[in-house]
Amino acid sequence: MSKEVKPESVSLHPLGTAAAPEQELLCIFGTGDLGRSLGLRLLQSGYRVVYGSRRPQSCGPLPQGTQAMTHAAAAQSASLVFLCIHRENYDFLETLDPQLRGKVLVDVSNNVKKNLYPEANAEYLQRLIPGAHVVKAFNTLSAWALQNGPLDANRQVFLCGNNAEAKQDVAEKATKLGFSVVDRGSLNAARELEDFPLQLFPEWRLPLLLALCLTASFFFYELIRDVVYAYVDQGKNISFRIMVSLANRVFPIVSLIMLSLCYLPGIIAAFLQLYRGTKYKRFPDWLDCWMLCRKQLGLLALGFASLHVLYTLIIPIRYYVRFKIATNTISQIKENRTSEFSLTTAWRADSYYSMGILGFCLFVLLGITSLPSVSNALSWREFSFIQSKLGYLALFFCTFHTYLYGWDRFLSPTIYKWCTPPGYMLSLVVPTVVLVVKLLLLLPCVDRTLTRIRQGWERCDPEDDSKKSLLT
Amino acid sequence: MSKEVKPESVSLHPLGTAAAPEQELLCIFGTGDLGRSLGLRLLQSGYRVVYGSRRPQSCGPLPQGTQAMTHAAAAQSASLVFLCIHRENYDFLETLDPQLRGKVLVDVSNNVKKNLYPEANAEYLQRLIPGAHVVKAFNTLSAWALQNGPLDANRQVFLCGNNAEAKQDVAEKATKLGFSVVDRGSLNAARELEDFPLQLFPEWRLPLLLALCLTASFFFYELIRDVVYAYVDQGKNISFRIMVSLANRVFPIVSLIMLSLCYLPGIIAAFLQLYRGTKYKRFPDWLDCWMLCRKQLGLLALGFASLHVLYTLIIPIRYYVRFKIATNTISQIKENRTSEFSLTTAWRADSYYSMGILGFCLFVLLGITSLPSVSNALSWREFSFIQSKLGYLALFFCTFHTYLYGWDRFLSPTIYKWCTPPGYMLSLVVPTVVLVVKLLLLLPCVDRTLTRIRQGWERCDPEDDSKKSLLT
Amino acid sequence: MSKEVKPESVSLHPLGTAAAPEQELLCIFGTGDLGRSLGLRLLQSGYRVVYGSRRPQSCGPLPQGTQAMTHAAAAQSASLVFLCIHRENYDFLETLDPQLRGKVLVDVSNNVKKNLYPEANAEYLQRLIPGAHVVKAFNTLSAWALQNGPLDANRQVFLCGNNAEAKQDVAEKATKLGFSVVDRGSLNAARELEDFPLQLFPEWRLPLLLALCLTASFFFYELIRDVVYAYVDQGKNISFRIMVSLANRVFPIVSLIMLSLCYLPGIIAAFLQLYRGTKYKRFPDWLDCWMLCRKQLGLLALGFASLHVLYTLIIPIRYYVRFKIATNTISQIKENRTSEFSLTTAWRADSYYSMGILGFCLFVLLGITSLPSVSNALSWREFSFIQSKLGYLALFFCTFHTYLYGWDRFLSPTIYKWCTPPGYMLSLVVPTVVLVVKLLLLLPCVDRTLTRIRQGWERCDPEDDSKKSLLT
Repeated sequence: MSKEVKPESVSLHPLGTAAAPEQELLCIFGTGDLGRSLGLRLLQSGYRVVYGSRRPQSCGPLPQGTQAMTHAAAAQSASLVFLCIHRENYDFLETLDPQLRGKVLVDVSNNVKKNLYPEANAEYLQRLIPGAHVVKAFNTLSAWALQNGPLDANRQVFLCGNNAEAKQDVAEKATKLGFSVVDRGSLNAARELEDFPLQLFPEWRLPLLLALCLTASFFFYELIRDVVYAYVDQGKNISFRIMVSLANRVFPIVSLIMLSLCYLPGIIAAFLQLYRGTKYKRFPDWLDCWMLCRKQLGLLALGFASLHVLYTLIIPIRYYVRFKIATNTISQIKENRTSEFSLTTAWRADSYYSMGILGFCLFVLLGITSLPSVSNALSWREFSFIQSKLGYLALFFCTFHTYLYGWDRFLSPTIYKWCTPPGYMLSLVVPTVVLVVKLLLLLPCVDRTLTRIRQGWERCDPEDDSKKSLLT
Repeated sequence: MSKEVKPESVSLHPLGTAAAPEQELLCIFGTGDLGRSLGLRLLQSGYRVVYGSRRPQSCGPLPQGTQAMTHAAAAQSASLVFLCIHRENYDFLETLDPQLRGKVLVDVSNNVKKNLYPEANAEYLQRLIPGAHVVKAFNTLSAWALQNGPLDANRQVFLCGNNAEAKQDVAEKATKLGFSVVDRGSLNAARELEDFPLQLFPEWRLPLLLALCLTASFFFYELIRDVVYAYVDQGKNISFRIMVSLANRVFPIVSLIMLSLCYLPGIIAAFLQLYRGTKYKRFPDWLDCWMLCRKQLGLLALGFASLHVLYTLIIPIRYYVRFKIATNTISQIKENRTSEFSLTTAWRADSYYSMGILGFCLFVLLGITSLPSVSNALSWREFSFIQSKLGYLALFFCTFHTYLYGWDRFLSPTIYKWCTPPGYMLSLVVPTVVLVVKLLLLLPCVDRTLTRIRQGWERCDPEDDSKKSLLT
Repeated sequence: MSKEVKPESVSLHPLGTAAAPEQELLCIFGTGDLGRSLGLRLLQSGYRVVYGSRRPQSCGPLPQGTQAMTHAAAAQSASLVFLCIHRENYDFLETLDPQLRGKVLVDVSNNVKKNLYPEANAEYLQRLIPGAHVVKAFNTLSAWALQNGPLDANRQVFLCGNNAEAKQDVAEKATKLGFSVVDRGSLNAARELEDFPLQLFPEWRLPLLLALCLTASFFFYELIRDVVYAYVDQGKNISFRIMVSLANRVFPIVSLIMLSLCYLPGIIAAFLQLYRGTKYKRFPDWLDCWMLCRKQLGLLALGFASLHVLYTLIIPIRYYVRFKIATNTISQIKENRTSEFSLTTAWRADSYYSMGILGFCLFVLLGITSLPSVSNALSWREFSFIQSKLGYLALFFCTFHTYLYGWDRFLSPTIYKWCTPPGYMLSLVVPTVVLVVKLLLLLPCVDRTLTRIRQGWERCDPEDDSKKSLLT
């Protein structure tokens, strides 16, 4: 027996593996969803569990094999206590100071809002019970993930705390539950961990705002050029066009602009690097920020492109279109006109559709490779091949699709209603610039310099550097 | 110093880390697919491997660097034996009892069917060789995953066993192979682990059955109202409508009903909580069960919605539709009728399509966020925002789409063939109820109470509680 | 030397957990993207970090809390050094030999191309500094993954090296950063690890080549039969059909052939097993290779099927189609013809579309279950149910769809232009063979034998075997 105790005296789990056959006893304060889920999971992983409760006799259904005690008794019995109660109810813990002294206290709590309290829950807890070792952990998991274990990828448990041994202890428990642990440092990081479950798509805000602004402005632009113009100029009410026709003009415009905005920052960055002659200077903040939200810009562009596809495909079912086609046919017969089949128009129209379909399919492929599980199965080179090479191809197809849509209409003066160009012309500006500049960057002389810069070469005094490195 | 060396001498890997440079030797019984895959993986992770085989001389191609011996010799040489053989062939192991005494026996076997044997394979094995420490592990992985390591997310190795040290030993091996270990307790859990690879979508059964019943009943309902009615009433054979027209009526109906059934249990739960004044009472079983299959209900609804979209988009290519349109145009000319363009109809039709497209796109978005890798990248708040807020929006769009489809047709008596309402009217009942009740729950007074209950507040005697907690 | 051996003999992290409160100090050579990202991550995980730099004074922005020194000073201060510099700059390390002696050197470098150097970077490094323990690790991660930690599934760190303790040390660091470690053995494996980030879809090459060949050959075949034939035979220029009509013939043909090629190797394998009477003989290499790229074949087939769907759905918007329909209607009126509604044609056309839609939807379902995160959530039985049962159903629907497209046209001699059958007939050969043979394999007598073979039964001398196993 003494042989087995000795090693334990240097280890961190005096109860667990040491007293060997007996499983380690852990305590949970709080019998709510979270507490019960956590308890169930601990049981499954081979721990024994007691609950501390305000009402040990009537605290609802607990996992089989556990028991409920008063807080004091429960805290007394275990060396590690999980706190699954709301911060508002922390006050009573002060009275348990003697029982909790020297124990590891795992704060699992979250708040309902950000910045509700001046200090993080875990810091407040540490202040309440200075004798305990508070560790913030498990709060980023849902009760669901706690109960069922890390089903898929969401297996990270973030933790922070001031006491290294306490953190190590909690980390071992988390590992045994099947999670992987990320240590975020001291208890100062608690606020960050507590804010994490409250965040609502922070990285999507800017791209969404941009999409909204673009959609709104192009919608009103087209509304005025189309519906209002027809009403003012010809007295015709074509307001019904708002629902499908206008929408189907705005969506592709926004999609194309946003897709090209994904590739613009890369080009600006390349120019900055060429101009500075080094890659070791930081980009301006706006460019960093822009580059970080390229994925979101692209996915939103894909969303708009999908809407455009669906709106286009329902065209032939629309009442208005059917009516117009029938009217055309009837008037052709009555006036005994015969329209000539134009080979050029057939080529143009079919190429236009083909380009659109190919561009969209490539775009969907880009979207699929953005799925976390897919992009993680790719090597870095594969990912950048798809996102960069195929991405530019998709941009080219979509831009070409729009040019084919315009064709020679830019020559007809009637298209410039109230002296304004149609929306699709405006949408072509950014992608055209991006594609032309990208072509410039692919010129051998430019490309070679850029590649060298990106491999660490710097334009000014490289000799000076190598000397230095030899001296060190 | 000596104090720290001792624990190593009692540790479980006498060959591995202790005797240092030499790699630990492991034994595998069985040279089938599983045995070979496991061996390859063990080799790659730095272990030495011997195989125990019935025919050491002719047991097929083994991984390079391994060797095959008789079972007895192989068992003798290693302290841990993987059993990659079928349960039917376990009998011969009894003869190896002396060689296996005190060794760790990892049972990797699976059965072809559930409940084939009265006891789990691992329990049977333990009974056969009482002197060995049987651990059930690795059986939930395919030979493919074993050979290639945990490529993506499926990295969990479940294990169970009666001896803690043996389990720890196997867990270390699994971790070194790149898996993460979930301890499921004693050997009693072996049956559960052995049943896991045999399960076939248990959580999809109920939703699939429901979808099937709904589809069948609405199909026959519409068949009678459409095809049979036309035949009986007007003697016309329009049976060809079964393939596309009828299907395209049934699919959206089933989709809408199933989508609304995703949201109904949440509403019922809210009412139950309001009525009981607490969240600490368990829901009835049927409600729990219903809530657990909401994801499956939603995904099936998405499948039906996708079918509806495709069936709708091919409408204008159909022979029947083209024929009807041509006939209409011709008869218009012959009878010299002129149909008037109706602005209202244009608005209604276009809004109808727009609502449908927007609803479908939101629906697809919900489906994408249900993908394990996507939902795991979301914080809990983000996930519930999408599934709840955007989900209700999708339900609203789809319901509105159906109302616009109906428009004022419910006033026309001819639509009630044989005094039955058309199917789409029936499909509107559940979603309308869900949306209206959800609106009620969003009323400030109701919402406030519900939020408080969900944060743990209880209607009856809260003072009584706080007193208790102070006393403890 | 003795000073350095002692701490090793008690534990592997002399600074870290041992000297307890103080955090372990790690050194990074190189202040580029990778170096900074790694440093940031190490800081977040609770390590202290110093940088070794050519220009400690002007090495750009480093993570807060770190400091830059000369290489020598930095190497002196830590027991583990990460090398985040390019191989071209390794030479100066020779001068640091005294400082690096006995230290763990983690080589994170990658090359720009495969086979650029005769030996792997890590092996070269080991040769340069024989006194250090070189471990190759972390090179398969992007700077992005290093900085942000393993966000989703890509959490594997592969490592290799000649010194077990050094590897263990690095493995512990990687685990603490939230990664999971896969030991790939000695430094000989370094080249493999260095080649990994450079690979570009190796497993997609063959299927892509096949798809390209099939597309090209069927495109020219159809081009000659359609456009060239019309020009030669009737002098008509219908070249515009290339963009949509021809494409929409080639895509479904290629898709159907590739889908059936997914199932052909399984059938060949079954026959081989039946013929040999055992599953323990290896398949020929070409069959192994073919079976390994079934997933890629299937996904490419799905891509072509999606193109086919989109090309089909835009048919009614095409200028050519609208023109033809209008011309038809007009000529009908002028010639006072009345076309009769054909019930058979309506049935055939609608069934044809229905089969296509159902086949496509099943196909998309197969594609979705191929997503890593989805397939990993499935048990082995569920996955094989979907990929095999539902896959054959999809193949059946698509083949039937093509048969319905053909209908009785094979009887009409005018379809065999220049005595060649149309492409869709050729595309039916492989799927028909696959389906018929699969039916044969499902015959009870054949199926029973096959199942027994796959469970390990062998046709020849099983008694002989069991005797052997009793003797061992």
